[in-house]
Amino acid sequence: MSAPKKVVLAYSGGLDTSIILKWLQAEYGCEVVTFTADLGQGEELEPARAKAVTLGIKEENIFIEDVREEFVRDFVFPMFRANAVYEGLYLLGTSIARPLISKRLVEIAEATGADAVAHGATGKGNDQVRFELAAYALNPDIKVIAPWREWDLTSRTKLLEFAEQHQIPVAKDKRGEAPFSVDANLLHTSSEGKVLEDPAEMAPDYVYQRTVNPEDAPDTPEYVEIGFERGDAVSINGEALSPAELLTKLNELGGKHGCGRLDLVEGRFVGMKSRGIYETPGGTLLLEAHRGIESITLDRGAAHLKDELMPRYAELIYNGFWYSPEREMLQAAIDKSQEHVTGTVRLKLYKGSAQTVGRWSDHSLYSEAHVTFEDDAGAYDQKDAAGFIQLNALRLKLLAARNRKLK
Amino acid sequence: MSAPKKVVLAYSGGLDTSIILKWLQAEYGCEVVTFTADLGQGEELEPARAKAVTLGIKEENIFIEDVREEFVRDFVFPMFRANAVYEGLYLLGTSIARPLISKRLVEIAEATGADAVAHGATGKGNDQVRFELAAYALNPDIKVIAPWREWDLTSRTKLLEFAEQHQIPVAKDKRGEAPFSVDANLLHTSSEGKVLEDPAEMAPDYVYQRTVNPEDAPDTPEYVEIGFERGDAVSINGEALSPAELLTKLNELGGKHGCGRLDLVEGRFVGMKSRGIYETPGGTLLLEAHRGIESITLDRGAAHLKDELMPRYAELIYNGFWYSPEREMLQAAIDKSQEHVTGTVRLKLYKGSAQTVGRWSDHSLYSEAHVTFEDDAGAYDQKDAAGFIQLNALRLKLLAARNRKLK
Amino acid sequence: MSAPKKVVLAYSGGLDTSIILKWLQAEYGCEVVTFTADLGQGEELEPARAKAVTLGIKEENIFIEDVREEFVRDFVFPMFRANAVYEGLYLLGTSIARPLISKRLVEIAEATGADAVAHGATGKGNDQVRFELAAYALNPDIKVIAPWREWDLTSRTKLLEFAEQHQIPVAKDKRGEAPFSVDANLLHTSSEGKVLEDPAEMAPDYVYQRTVNPEDAPDTPEYVEIGFERGDAVSINGEALSPAELLTKLNELGGKHGCGRLDLVEGRFVGMKSRGIYETPGGTLLLEAHRGIESITLDRGAAHLKDELMPRYAELIYNGFWYSPEREMLQAAIDKSQEHVTGTVRLKLYKGSAQTVGRWSDHSLYSEAHVTFEDDAGAYDQKDAAGFIQLNALRLKLLAARNRKLK
Amino acid sequence: MSAPKKVVLAYSGGLDTSIILKWLQAEYGCEVVTFTADLGQGEELEPARAKAVTLGIKEENIFIEDVREEFVRDFVFPMFRANAVYEGLYLLGTSIARPLISKRLVEIAEATGADAVAHGATGKGNDQVRFELAAYALNPDIKVIAPWREWDLTSRTKLLEFAEQHQIPVAKDKRGEAPFSVDANLLHTSSEGKVLEDPAEMAPDYVYQRTVNPEDAPDTPEYVEIGFERGDAVSINGEALSPAELLTKLNELGGKHGCGRLDLVEGRFVGMKSRGIYETPGGTLLLEAHRGIESITLDRGAAHLKDELMPRYAELIYNGFWYSPEREMLQAAIDKSQEHVTGTVRLKLYKGSAQTVGRWSDHSLYSEAHVTFEDDAGAYDQKDAAGFIQLNALRLKLLAARNRKLK
Repeated sequence: MSAPKKVVLAYSGGLDTSIILKWLQAEYGCEVVTFTADLGQGEELEPARAKAVTLGIKEENIFIEDVREEFVRDFVFPMFRANAVYEGLYLLGTSIARPLISKRLVEIAEATGADAVAHGATGKGNDQVRFELAAYALNPDIKVIAPWREWDLTSRTKLLEFAEQHQIPVAKDKRGEAPFSVDANLLHTSSEGKVLEDPAEMAPDYVYQRTVNPEDAPDTPEYVEIGFERGDAVSINGEALSPAELLTKLNELGGKHGCGRLDLVEGRFVGMKSRGIYETPGGTLLLEAHRGIESITLDRGAAHLKDELMPRYAELIYNGFWYSPEREMLQAAIDKSQEHVTGTVRLKLYKGSAQTVGRWSDHSLYSEAHVTFEDDAGAYDQKDAAGFIQLNALRLKLLAARNRKLK
Repeated sequence: MSAPKKVVLAYSGGLDTSIILKWLQAEYGCEVVTFTADLGQGEELEPARAKAVTLGIKEENIFIEDVREEFVRDFVFPMFRANAVYEGLYLLGTSIARPLISKRLVEIAEATGADAVAHGATGKGNDQVRFELAAYALNPDIKVIAPWREWDLTSRTKLLEFAEQHQIPVAKDKRGEAPFSVDANLLHTSSEGKVLEDPAEMAPDYVYQRTVNPEDAPDTPEYVEIGFERGDAVSINGEALSPAELLTKLNELGGKHGCGRLDLVEGRFVGMKSRGIYETPGGTLLLEAHRGIESITLDRGAAHLKDELMPRYAELIYNGFWYSPEREMLQAAIDKSQEHVTGTVRLKLYKGSAQTVGRWSDHSLYSEAHVTFEDDAGAYDQKDAAGFIQLNALRLKLLAARNRKLK
Repeated sequence: MSAPKKVVLAYSGGLDTSIILKWLQAEYGCEVVTFTADLGQGEELEPARAKAVTLGIKEENIFIEDVREEFVRDFVFPMFRANAVYEGLYLLGTSIARPLISKRLVEIAEATGADAVAHGATGKGNDQVRFELAAYALNPDIKVIAPWREWDLTSRTKLLEFAEQHQIPVAKDKRGEAPFSVDANLLHTSSEGKVLEDPAEMAPDYVYQRTVNPEDAPDTPEYVEIGFERGDAVSINGEALSPAELLTKLNELGGKHGCGRLDLVEGRFVGMKSRGIYETPGGTLLLEAHRGIESITLDRGAAHLKDELMPRYAELIYNGFWYSPEREMLQAAIDKSQEHVTGTVRLKLYKGSAQTVGRWSDHSLYSEAHVTFEDDAGAYDQKDAAGFIQLNALRLKLLAARNRKLK
Repeated sequence: MSAPKKVVLAYSGGLDTSIILKWLQAEYGCEVVTFTADLGQGEELEPARAKAVTLGIKEENIFIEDVREEFVRDFVFPMFRANAVYEGLYLLGTSIARPLISKRLVEIAEATGADAVAHGATGKGNDQVRFELAAYALNPDIKVIAPWREWDLTSRTKLLEFAEQHQIPVAKDKRGEAPFSVDANLLHTSSEGKVLEDPAEMAPDYVYQRTVNPEDAPDTPEYVEIGFERGDAVSINGEALSPAELLTKLNELGGKHGCGRLDLVEGRFVGMKSRGIYETPGGTLLLEAHRGIESITLDRGAAHLKDELMPRYAELIYNGFWYSPEREMLQAAIDKSQEHVTGTVRLKLYKGSAQTVGRWSDHSLYSEAHVTFEDDAGAYDQKDAAGFIQLNALRLKLLAARNRKLK
């Protein structure tokens, strides 16, 4: 790979990406463009602008954007249509944000004539893979710089020395090492590393940032009604909300009731297992409610096929293959199923749990006439079941007869 | 089908199966053998014996058995190795009990020279299918009698008249109709029908029989450690327990903390949707803990394959195909994966939720040396990630280049 | 089911469906509408009109249509996009024609105010299921009459007596029983039953109707080039052809060279195994060529996902679930993959085999630059493979280390 | 990676691996152990011994083994139980041999105290991955040397110079470059590269080495009967044969009749597409026959599950994951299904095609009594089909009714 001339850096304004910024300049003598996105991580963006200016970035090379609506509408919602969970439990909060960042990095590179993009993910994690696969899939000629895999700033001390040498201001509370590493966006907060590295040990309470401890949640349940149209949530308690507004509101509700905490050991794409603490308050409500509305509006055949496809779909997102033909094929199948996933679900939120307690829809496939224990007025002829069972049994009977004969 | 001469009836001792007993005698003039099993449903069995005698069944034709250990060991545990849930949520508590009942019905038929078996499931549900597919798979020549599909006792009034005519004692509290229908065994209690038929309406609290309302659960969390060997739970808080003892104990713990309630609309195999309230306190803890121990002992490739196979496996059990070659194939694959699923999981139980907060094992695949944010002493070379990503990206790059060329 | 008042019958003009026509009138006193379709079965349709008139059907109740283009365009081609084969070998020639027939039956019923449709499939086969599931999926209120499951004309003699009683002309060569049963359309001819019922016995040569015996095929290979656009064949040897024209031409080519014969024992949806002789000359060429063009234009991820979904997709078509949400979901995924499946494949046809010997496309993903054994000018860095392998190996190494430790 | 001290080299005795042998000594100053296996590639092994001695390898460090029986019994046969084909067509002849070679390399390393193994696969292909994943899975501490990824002998000229410098004898016909690259074993011969690199061009006839051109095959068909027991072939025309003998015999038969030629463009695991010419004469017969015997002895549920699992299974083998938990899980499922896959299949071989024309077995599930067009004496009640269809249709009807209501 030839040296990059102009690099678009995913820039948070924090110490690590500031060091990367300076390192790119020092290492490659290249022009740096910064991209700072509001994905709902809950931090002010303007300080990042000021900091970039301080570090010598030209005004026209500073890109700061609020992408929350795009994030929820084009990434989070499509994923939730699939009821995606990784390894049975993880709602993919980090995974789903990476492709959007790469998409904007590549677009800004094309707009500014940059030949490379750079990110601050380490060489041990999944995020490097997600950033880079997405970037390459969107622009096969782009260069991707992953400083953590390249430089020799392999300790906190070296990093701080580098910062000092390059006049990068270091906040006092950043001098020491963080007790764990955090990623956050509108969908979730993840914490991992350091104090969390022993999976036998319970995570200390201070790790949790976005959800109250269930013990501290209200002693009274709260009921919330989530409205869906064609598979996507569109309202809360009857109030229509934009995607990002809706997820924000669900986060408040879920966080308040201690919902969506997860302590998980997962298998990384790069081969080792890692332990993470995830908080996905709004997403947890959304998943439960989406399953709830599907339960009455989605045909069994479609629902079961979705369930069978889901683990693969989730794995693709986890592994960074959002922009791949196979993810898009699965998405096409999933989206096809959502045409009638419209209606309302009532959830009960209480001390860490979120459970469907009611659901209704004009698109419902539930037929009280058919299922009733009462007289069904001929909707269903129980005698049909005899034939149904006989023919389902036929191959099993032939099998049993064969096996008996051979004994 | 020629008329049966001797029928083994799945007999609970209750009013409905007592009516079936008499109806079989009246309709077919056949000898009736009763089979009453203790599956952990929480009812005394001896009254069933007395009642059968009263109804004229010969002592040698009355079979009463405690099958709880067999149930948990040979049915529940194998199923939990798969982390089986139907439609994302249902732990299959009713489904998994049916094949065992059919197995004993067929075995007793063979032992007593009966040519038929009979069950009390209706023509609208899944249980008829489960009973019958299992029976036919075990004995292709057996006849199966499903009185609810055959007789004309289509109302409560007619049933009570029949009971009166045939001197079947009717308890006073059975004169009225039950407000909903219940099935119970050591794994779960299900309630459905009548007051539960409107899926928009929250289930009334009196429906729940085995779990306290989370609001009424203890205000202090309880921690429990579940030990596993080769995929099966073997101990609680260090105390070795037999399968049925263990599940009994988990039920107590889960029930006390309000764990394992589920309000579900599901797609029945016979084609309609139905709404059920399920309580699976112990099973809910077991599933969570089993996923927890797998998370550190099971390889990612095995775990993901299991997740992909699981929905089909669960569907097979739900649909009644326990005794089918494809369920057995999947079981072989699942069991193969469990060799090292050994270790201990700590769960936190609190007001309806059961969550893994720690897990450890001599068989752990978790390598702190590899995953650590600290210096890993060369366990992992971050530069490998570059090549890993490049080759994973190659096809995506070729694709992007092709698509760009054609634009 | 209340008695039908007006029935649309799938009418071939042959003896069996003529008997059904009269039986419907006699049994139900209902008005009969006939629908005769040219699906490419190779029979004149006008005699069916004359016969229907003879049997008393009103002119406005006789529907005769050439649906060959619709058949190939909307049913055969979508199916071939999936490379669908049932049980590894069967190209689903009968299965794929049934939904179209049902669709027209239902549409004609709605247009003529009929409340029922009728078909001539027996109660042992798959076709009854396919006809009826499609009809019910398109009109949930339609009645379906399957005379073979209802009447008592259970022997050849009784059928002929019925024909005689009802003045149905019986051709001399129809007095005896056919030595086997045939179904044909533009995609295939199937033969089954009678002389073919022993699967150990080789099918006699006179069974084959549409393909020459490979021994009698030309001694010189013939090469044919099939052009594709977006997954569908559009030309042969450079000549653009409509879907039905194209399949007709492929049938000629394949038939001449003895391609597409299949002697199969298959598992029917109704539970038993049956033996069929299938001739699918054009389809066999089409499948081979479609795989050929996909091999250079379809990404590996998409191709492998398609291969994994295919057996389910084929099973759905075989079982009659063309009009089901899950088939439509799979179709959406498959269609999504075909956007760039454009280009040309050269096949060699010779004495029963059809093999790809060349393929080219502007949409090709094949990169000689990457794959070459010669100098690749830096297109591919072989050192990347080391990292790729290391990280793919990591979990296997951790597994091996764990297993060694425990030995 | 520290430098290896003692390396076990997969040594063919040919020029390339002789150069590797010397290069290992020169580069690492390490002791070299050679392993030469007879996998049925059709070459004498003793010349490899002589050559190794010439190159200075100690007698006790030369391992020459006939592993043909192990190869067929423990690798080829288990794979054929799955009917495995990669990308619809490739019988995995190269892929399946690699794990066995790695297994022996690792075993010899452990026996001789070597700390490394080496292979002669390039950095562009799949074989490096297969060799190395297998080696690491069997010994997590082993070093693997892949000289083609490391050295700078990047042209034919440099290789020959190196050979000259190190006194490696170069046969005259090896001075020029081979027109394509070949791999062979008892299952297949593959040819790729150079003259084959344009996938539009038909492969020249001289590429084929193991099968006659179908045009040159006998003008008379030959019939062959293959006997199976529990999924594995055990006899030909009634003669019991060992696994390797049997495959050898099938190769003769298939080769004589021009069976098993394949011209394929495939997606490599490392990301690019490549074109290969494969000859798998015996394997082609074996696959056809195995499907044939399964068609009468394997239950439909098992068969369809196998078909769904197969693409993944084949992909795992292609990608080098033979020794992975997920391949072993799938193998357990597949093997479970083969218990009754016992019986005989008759194939017709003629001018490039091999087709099942008859099959019989004591384990047959085919029931003429059920399927017959004649009177079935009550084996099957056609009326059962009505109920079977009604309940399969129910969800489709509910769906159609819902959709109509909303229009």
